Amino acid sequence: MENTQIFKGNIVFTKTPQKFSFYENGYIIVENSKVKAMTSSLPEAYKSLPIKDYGDKLIIPGFVDLHLHAPQFANLGLGLDKELIPWLEGYTFPEEAKFKDAEYASKIYKRLVKELWKQGTTRSVIFSSIHKETTQLLFDLLIQSGLGAYVGKVNMDRNSPQYLIEEKDQSIKDTIEIIEKYLNTSDLVKPIITPRFVPSCTSELMRELGNLAKKYDLPVQSHLSENTAEIEWIKALHPECTTSNSNLSSGIMPVRRFLSEGIPVGLGSDISAGHKLSIPSVMNITVQMSKMKWLDSNKALAPLSTSEVFYLGTKGGGEFFGNVGSFEEGYDFDALIIDDNNLGDIDISLEDRIQRYIYIGDDRNIIDRYIKGNLIAEPLF
Amino acid sequence: MENTQIFKGNIVFTKTPQKFSFYENGYIIVENSKVKAMTSSLPEAYKSLPIKDYGDKLIIPGFVDLHLHAPQFANLGLGLDKELIPWLEGYTFPEEAKFKDAEYASKIYKRLVKELWKQGTTRSVIFSSIHKETTQLLFDLLIQSGLGAYVGKVNMDRNSPQYLIEEKDQSIKDTIEIIEKYLNTSDLVKPIITPRFVPSCTSELMRELGNLAKKYDLPVQSHLSENTAEIEWIKALHPECTTSNSNLSSGIMPVRRFLSEGIPVGLGSDISAGHKLSIPSVMNITVQMSKMKWLDSNKALAPLSTSEVFYLGTKGGGEFFGNVGSFEEGYDFDALIIDDNNLGDIDISLEDRIQRYIYIGDDRNIIDRYIKGNLIAEPLF
Repeated sequence: MENTQIFKGNIVFTKTPQKFSFYENGYIIVENSKVKAMTSSLPEAYKSLPIKDYGDKLIIPGFVDLHLHAPQFANLGLGLDKELIPWLEGYTFPEEAKFKDAEYASKIYKRLVKELWKQGTTRSVIFSSIHKETTQLLFDLLIQSGLGAYVGKVNMDRNSPQYLIEEKDQSIKDTIEIIEKYLNTSDLVKPIITPRFVPSCTSELMRELGNLAKKYDLPVQSHLSENTAEIEWIKALHPECTTSNSNLSSGIMPVRRFLSEGIPVGLGSDISAGHKLSIPSVMNITVQMSKMKWLDSNKALAPLSTSEVFYLGTKGGGEFFGNVGSFEEGYDFDALIIDDNNLGDIDISLEDRIQRYIYIGDDRNIIDRYIKGNLIAEPLF
Repeated sequence: MENTQIFKGNIVFTKTPQKFSFYENGYIIVENSKVKAMTSSLPEAYKSLPIKDYGDKLIIPGFVDLHLHAPQFANLGLGLDKELIPWLEGYTFPEEAKFKDAEYASKIYKRLVKELWKQGTTRSVIFSSIHKETTQLLFDLLIQSGLGAYVGKVNMDRNSPQYLIEEKDQSIKDTIEIIEKYLNTSDLVKPIITPRFVPSCTSELMRELGNLAKKYDLPVQSHLSENTAEIEWIKALHPECTTSNSNLSSGIMPVRRFLSEGIPVGLGSDISAGHKLSIPSVMNITVQMSKMKWLDSNKALAPLSTSEVFYLGTKGGGEFFGNVGSFEEGYDFDALIIDDNNLGDIDISLEDRIQRYIYIGDDRNIIDRYIKGNLIAEPLF
């Protein structure tokens, strides 16, 4: 019982997208940073241990952000009157170029990591920029914070502004250096292979990155068919490509279809194309867009429910990290403690309370954050 | 110069939807609670007067909410997996029935008025419930707060749950009593005629309410063609009605078309069908929905720009109150002071700063609120 922790409160999570699981005034028993059991009353064997009692507060899994661009953090809320390509050229690429500078990167990455902490995003999958040194800085800040992440140095060797194009061999060399430095440094912050998207990577670069992914057994992240103009561009660059992805070009992803087909799906803030780092905000807009898709599909694709988007933003995305995003046995104890007293009467069902928090709560409602059983304090930098 | 006030800061507003007007480090001269002039440097005649200097902060018009249901405030964030009719029957009507009780109404209405203050909504157009006494309570709380509003006692005499149906003559009698009590009590809080919507009002009730509107020269608010099921219902109730409104049933209002045709448009939070009281949040979702409409219309209806939604949420809605929502000469000085230092670098253009505030700011950024030249303190109740 040495590495045992016990938490008490109103426990809410999703084993499946279809419905919430609730333990009202329940206990979570955590052993060696993983959930061992959840119970309504505490077994005799545990009664002598201290209990962290959160009273009437909610205990929910930490939020998982599957897609965000760290060097775009300073652009949050800017340039949103543009479409993808003009936005990349007018706002995003010039901002990313600044991450050659360690001092600037340090300022922005510290703010980003603090904000991830604040918003309860316990795990994230991150694009940095092409720059080796400042990507390492981001690794170091995340490790220091205690948050979990995959971080990918971006690779791009064509069709980008001159100041952001890499020479292929150097790109691979820098990528290897980062991988070897961080592959086994932290069990929470890991490298990921990150070709930006097809138009900005030559086939040779893609092939060599594929080899690195195999050699080091690393995951890969990229962008795919984001809007119609990009899809047309890729068809021109690669007439040999399939065109099936153009089905995704209507503006709203058919999440319902993916869920029905058993395709793993999670949520991403996609800052700074997305303007909120908060995963509950992403859950809201996901439901709203699914309602538009429902109308647009002549009511063929049903809107997502609150439990479905909650699942996507916790266990759905968490799958990318292993047993993360739920409170089932063997899952990492990543949790947020939610005080929703300021949101109205708390003498309502837990289902209503969690929905209300998702829709109208904000970072002020998160009073504690745990990752792998550790209480994570606000980053001091 | 007796009733003259001078404010200094970075002034941002919209005379027209097409573009923002900016006065960097400018002065607003207010006389008798109305904007007299805006200048880049202060005329000699005013130099001896005290200046309220807000430094690098933004000074913007107060937000205007053209549609909200006060007795639904406690339901914010609840029941949003439902469509309109089940949502009305399962959540909204039962909650509204509670406003027969003065104690409950007092608790919720105090929270609502405080929240309007917090969110910078300086003017709003409000549905209360059918209940005369608690509607008067809402009038009194608003008058006490210093916020501006139209408040309408709801009228409904058919097709509603038994506990919310009025008898027509009593409905009219109660409405008259409220009108006569509040018609000239406050220059900021006024009555408005409020038949809930066609299905819940008999033709006789509608006719008599129309007569009251004429007699007392009052505006009227209601609901129109909110979704396809409701439109079908109204066709069945009133086969004599026109069907042109069914064009609006696609789920997203074609705001672009209304703007092009010169139809006055403003924004409303529509709580609790809308889940955020914050008008900047409504601006965000309005832009996002207009982008979906753009795709859905084969790019015929251009997305709304940031200045366009800002206009809708200030001057567009403000027109309903007279000269409200802008800083042009003769406009009431309704203003918010925005401290956006926590949102990132403020050494960027005012256009970028206002857009960033709308997208990623929240109530914490509003440090002062003025209505008709008066600084409005947080309600003490």
